Amino acid sequence: MGMVGGGPGSFIGAIHRSASQMDGLIELCAGAFSSSPEKSRQSGEELMLDPSRVYSSYDEMFEKELALPESERIDIVSIVTPNNVHFDPTKKALEKGFHVVLDKPMTLNYEEAMELHQIIKSSDKLFCLTHTYTGYPMIKQAKQMVADGAIGEIRKVYVEYPQGWLWKLLEHEDNKQAEWRTDPLRNGKAGCFGDIGTHAFNLAEYVSGLKVAKICADLSIKIPGRMIDDDGAILMRFENDASGILTASQVDTGVENNLKIRIYGDKGGLEWQQEDCNSLIARWPNQPSQIFRAGTGYLTALANENIRTPAGHPEGYMEAFANIYRNFARCIYALEKGEEPKPEWKDFPGAEDGIRGMAFIDHVLASNVSEMKWTPLVVKY
Amino acid sequence: MGMVGGGPGSFIGAIHRSASQMDGLIELCAGAFSSSPEKSRQSGEELMLDPSRVYSSYDEMFEKELALPESERIDIVSIVTPNNVHFDPTKKALEKGFHVVLDKPMTLNYEEAMELHQIIKSSDKLFCLTHTYTGYPMIKQAKQMVADGAIGEIRKVYVEYPQGWLWKLLEHEDNKQAEWRTDPLRNGKAGCFGDIGTHAFNLAEYVSGLKVAKICADLSIKIPGRMIDDDGAILMRFENDASGILTASQVDTGVENNLKIRIYGDKGGLEWQQEDCNSLIARWPNQPSQIFRAGTGYLTALANENIRTPAGHPEGYMEAFANIYRNFARCIYALEKGEEPKPEWKDFPGAEDGIRGMAFIDHVLASNVSEMKWTPLVVKY
Amino acid sequence: MGMVGGGPGSFIGAIHRSASQMDGLIELCAGAFSSSPEKSRQSGEELMLDPSRVYSSYDEMFEKELALPESERIDIVSIVTPNNVHFDPTKKALEKGFHVVLDKPMTLNYEEAMELHQIIKSSDKLFCLTHTYTGYPMIKQAKQMVADGAIGEIRKVYVEYPQGWLWKLLEHEDNKQAEWRTDPLRNGKAGCFGDIGTHAFNLAEYVSGLKVAKICADLSIKIPGRMIDDDGAILMRFENDASGILTASQVDTGVENNLKIRIYGDKGGLEWQQEDCNSLIARWPNQPSQIFRAGTGYLTALANENIRTPAGHPEGYMEAFANIYRNFARCIYALEKGEEPKPEWKDFPGAEDGIRGMAFIDHVLASNVSEMKWTPLVVKY
Amino acid sequence: MGMVGGGPGSFIGAIHRSASQMDGLIELCAGAFSSSPEKSRQSGEELMLDPSRVYSSYDEMFEKELALPESERIDIVSIVTPNNVHFDPTKKALEKGFHVVLDKPMTLNYEEAMELHQIIKSSDKLFCLTHTYTGYPMIKQAKQMVADGAIGEIRKVYVEYPQGWLWKLLEHEDNKQAEWRTDPLRNGKAGCFGDIGTHAFNLAEYVSGLKVAKICADLSIKIPGRMIDDDGAILMRFENDASGILTASQVDTGVENNLKIRIYGDKGGLEWQQEDCNSLIARWPNQPSQIFRAGTGYLTALANENIRTPAGHPEGYMEAFANIYRNFARCIYALEKGEEPKPEWKDFPGAEDGIRGMAFIDHVLASNVSEMKWTPLVVKY
Repeated sequence: MGMVGGGPGSFIGAIHRSASQMDGLIELCAGAFSSSPEKSRQSGEELMLDPSRVYSSYDEMFEKELALPESERIDIVSIVTPNNVHFDPTKKALEKGFHVVLDKPMTLNYEEAMELHQIIKSSDKLFCLTHTYTGYPMIKQAKQMVADGAIGEIRKVYVEYPQGWLWKLLEHEDNKQAEWRTDPLRNGKAGCFGDIGTHAFNLAEYVSGLKVAKICADLSIKIPGRMIDDDGAILMRFENDASGILTASQVDTGVENNLKIRIYGDKGGLEWQQEDCNSLIARWPNQPSQIFRAGTGYLTALANENIRTPAGHPEGYMEAFANIYRNFARCIYALEKGEEPKPEWKDFPGAEDGIRGMAFIDHVLASNVSEMKWTPLVVKY
Repeated sequence: MGMVGGGPGSFIGAIHRSASQMDGLIELCAGAFSSSPEKSRQSGEELMLDPSRVYSSYDEMFEKELALPESERIDIVSIVTPNNVHFDPTKKALEKGFHVVLDKPMTLNYEEAMELHQIIKSSDKLFCLTHTYTGYPMIKQAKQMVADGAIGEIRKVYVEYPQGWLWKLLEHEDNKQAEWRTDPLRNGKAGCFGDIGTHAFNLAEYVSGLKVAKICADLSIKIPGRMIDDDGAILMRFENDASGILTASQVDTGVENNLKIRIYGDKGGLEWQQEDCNSLIARWPNQPSQIFRAGTGYLTALANENIRTPAGHPEGYMEAFANIYRNFARCIYALEKGEEPKPEWKDFPGAEDGIRGMAFIDHVLASNVSEMKWTPLVVKY
Repeated sequence: MGMVGGGPGSFIGAIHRSASQMDGLIELCAGAFSSSPEKSRQSGEELMLDPSRVYSSYDEMFEKELALPESERIDIVSIVTPNNVHFDPTKKALEKGFHVVLDKPMTLNYEEAMELHQIIKSSDKLFCLTHTYTGYPMIKQAKQMVADGAIGEIRKVYVEYPQGWLWKLLEHEDNKQAEWRTDPLRNGKAGCFGDIGTHAFNLAEYVSGLKVAKICADLSIKIPGRMIDDDGAILMRFENDASGILTASQVDTGVENNLKIRIYGDKGGLEWQQEDCNSLIARWPNQPSQIFRAGTGYLTALANENIRTPAGHPEGYMEAFANIYRNFARCIYALEKGEEPKPEWKDFPGAEDGIRGMAFIDHVLASNVSEMKWTPLVVKY
Repeated sequence: MGMVGGGPGSFIGAIHRSASQMDGLIELCAGAFSSSPEKSRQSGEELMLDPSRVYSSYDEMFEKELALPESERIDIVSIVTPNNVHFDPTKKALEKGFHVVLDKPMTLNYEEAMELHQIIKSSDKLFCLTHTYTGYPMIKQAKQMVADGAIGEIRKVYVEYPQGWLWKLLEHEDNKQAEWRTDPLRNGKAGCFGDIGTHAFNLAEYVSGLKVAKICADLSIKIPGRMIDDDGAILMRFENDASGILTASQVDTGVENNLKIRIYGDKGGLEWQQEDCNSLIARWPNQPSQIFRAGTGYLTALANENIRTPAGHPEGYMEAFANIYRNFARCIYALEKGEEPKPEWKDFPGAEDGIRGMAFIDHVLASNVSEMKWTPLVVKY
């Protein structure tokens, strides 16, 4: 695997590296870690890579790797740059014949996403978008239980993604993460809703198996001087008329990152939160609630394929991330062997999730400035 | 004290009786427990009351009690009837010279509430509305900490009141509670939002010290055949432009009653939920979160006046309810002695809370059918 | 009811009063609240009692109440004095023909307990010992589930009662509670193990339905200058050879009062803690854990008879205490009517619990100074 | 790195591989995965290793790797075999000049551990024993806070390691893990106390910074037909006379793996449990409890060096394991460069922990059969 981005000071680059390496299926061999050749070189050295495979640009990486014998060259490109540098390297990597793992959101805007979608569709390479939270085993358990009808027809979805780290103008205090994530040119026109609102939206659709049909958004910039939204809430209706509430914030002062989803149907309900990510609470009328736990013997195949340790040995964010990489790699190996991958392996996020995420952002911003209550969410692929 | 309503099959009548008696300040001596004289008599017998003070109607009770010597007659009337029988007994009791404790919501509709407000204002008797949740000591601690500026200027209020008990058409299954609470003639025109949405609204305003300025509501009837709302969510903006999200449901299948409030300012945040009602979590940037606990030595006077046990001896719903009665009784005793009650004792809900609650219901229903996003919440007193 | 003790500064007296009054079955009419006549009078005034029924001593109270007509006099005596004033008023009250509720532990020592037992046995009045924790509905649910064989043959009982309030020499800082509870003359020869160790022991035997057969104790005085134990742990074996671990401390700095019991059999396990007193966790092999909750429709009769509110309206310590009083009162009423009380009502702690508690203290102290590992726990009644 | 053991069906082998690879500092290049050459070959293939470096025995691996040029050969040997195959490969690996990571417990018995200690001391290679739980960042935070005096002089340590997976005779049901772990020839003479009791013991000494001075043990075989202990409890006294309670079980039916430690001093207390491994609760007298969280900005260097993600992105068991490998690898790199490693990197478990663990087992078994209460814990190195 070769990496684009993830140089000094990057948070998500290190996560991608650990997650991809954890299962021994993927090896990091090359990288264009920064637009600064010196920083890229420095990162390569820290990662103990062969200096000849540490590049100054992704263009250079693609070209020189292709010049290597097929058995030696990278076959996957992992792209972990800011959002404004998603489209171009992804497009080129696919066109050059590499599989691509791309950090979310898919692109800087919906138009790029649509164009990229065409490229992905016409490529015979695999594409993966790291909506991390769908990699948690108990989220997969929830998805399967919903799909199996365990909680009946869905009535209600609550999803919340509260953070507090941008509680003040950190972007004026030499904080690199805060700088690019609050800059519309690098992050895109939505702030909090581009960064984490899309995760919440993706999770709601993933677990419920339903598409959102219309939304009513109220966003804010809570800190004077900030350029893009840092907080908001959305009323939603799904295609079956189920109600939804989605909240996301980066200014809930003192709050960490406790993504939470609750979903109720006419037979029961399911509740999950990242802080207790190895538990899934099931609610039933007139029966005790149940605690489904990762690593036990009673889970669905979809959950079991995404667990490494026995019950009570907590797995976390990194393993959820690694599940996406592992499933992606398993599919590639199957492809190479001409075998059909297991259905559980194919359950990683891709282009459709990406396009819906970008469309979500556009519609949320439109709804936010609309005087009308409802804005239909119409997504073309 | 004499009680109106609370006969056989009543849930809230028994709660009022236990809550009022717990501290030995109030004694139940009389009652008109049911519109059926036989049922009233039966309740009186079970409660071991003097049969001569068990009445067939509240009119009879008011008349006959007034005929007793002042030292023997009741001085407080507790009214725990369905919502359509709130206005008349309250009006008459006040006019006859009794203090009144009334179960919420104040009346069947806003117009009645306005009229009752005038009667309360012109009376020299005390009036109390049992918005139970403001009686919890850690809610009082939260209110005081917010008022003291501990978490700074408020940015955000989340309040949720999820229940699941009406997950199916219980009102067709001979369930008395379900019957009247889903009947617009007895419960009022709002269902879930009349019953528990008003509690959530009251709690949000109580803790934040802020008034809601505008709302955007999306209600549902999730069970076909039901006549009034059983679920909904509301976007809110407070008078200082802080954002709010209020959700309430009676069809979150399998869920009990976990009222929860979270409030964030520019210095920190506070989180409370009824399931862990003796804890208040305080969130701070760059400092460990703190767990404030009932019964400890470091709480505010407002909290301490509402606690009976040392730390780690859990108090609950009944004690929160009893706090309202105790504070009400303490004020009456002070009044009788010509003393000024402590400010902490005067902190019980009253007419203003009641009117705002009724106005909230009207505006929520209006917003729900409006195509516009925002409906201003304007309340005249 | 008349009360002995519970004057100014008493903690447990106020608890007994609230708990006994909560359900309207018992009325406090008289009291000898303090050995100081002035303090007793003052307490009576605060409690708004008829001054003629506020006495200077329990002897006076017994005598003068007996002189009243039977329908006016007290029928229950509640004794809430320090442990050295348990035996005498209980003995006299029973001999004069009053029912007795006595705060635990039963007496100052085992010999007194044995003598009192004889008096109780030969009396036709009822005796109740307030081992509060057996009054919790979910503890009763646990007891019944164990008795019904739900978790199979018991293998293991963990019970812990950690407190931290005596973390320093409070008894030298003018703290009345700390003073008498660390004074062997008033509290008895065991400190922490007399006060809360006996609660833990009682709870373990109550829930398991098993008697402890032998113990191995290691007690400490963790604060130099203190006269009796403030911390300890005990290995236990029950009559069926199940293993037990009992810990109790009053010097676990910063800890409140989280009594906790866990019990495991060959089919499953049950876990309860006071901090989450309305939940009972059931553990099963190869099945999700379950959360049994107070106020739901699926509990045993033994639990249901001890609940006042629907699920999600938390009851607490006061209601557990009130359950003991309510069951006691229900039995007295049944007795008076010549009816057989329900079996669930008779489930309140009595003389046998008291004697076993006193024997436990003696054996713990003996084991603590023994060089041998095991000390048999032999209790004669 | 080359691995000894960890072939088909091994649980811990896969954990070691993931943990060692996660940070990109160690690469698995060789292995003797099974005593069956065919199984070893099969494992190597699954792991996509060069077949020429997959060996039939560790002897072969050591020999053939040494024949490779230094830059190509393995430098670390990871040993994950059953306990009876710990001593020999460790001894040989060190003598051949490899660094060694060894799964705990150190050896089959104390005598082997003593002999191995001499070999380790006379070697210039590094040795690491994977007592996983000391790798958790919040455990390191606790250790540092205790060492810094934050909770004062230690009075009390509770440590418990409850499991339920051996709740029935799984070793007769073709379960490989159960088979060797209940077989004294492969596991050693202690069962539960060899497997997890040693972890609890190690954790107690690690966090407290104190050595256990004497113990009083009561072990059981709860399942008839089992050959070694599956449950037990130990009273302890530390060198400063602090009290300790250690419990471990593999037959707490339905329980997973919730290792928990609580430690109290004369200023405060700390509480940690594996199920909520990213939180450390600090208790204080007369102040709110605090929740210290992984990934925040206010932790000690010892904790921070062992964290990969920001607050609220849960790390787990695998990352704790990886911390041990990463610190070990960082020390090796420093050694190779002739630099002094950071003190935080040197904080991984080694020979002393191993010997104390083996001595603990011997003394626990001796105490268990002793009639005397206390057995001194004397460990010679």
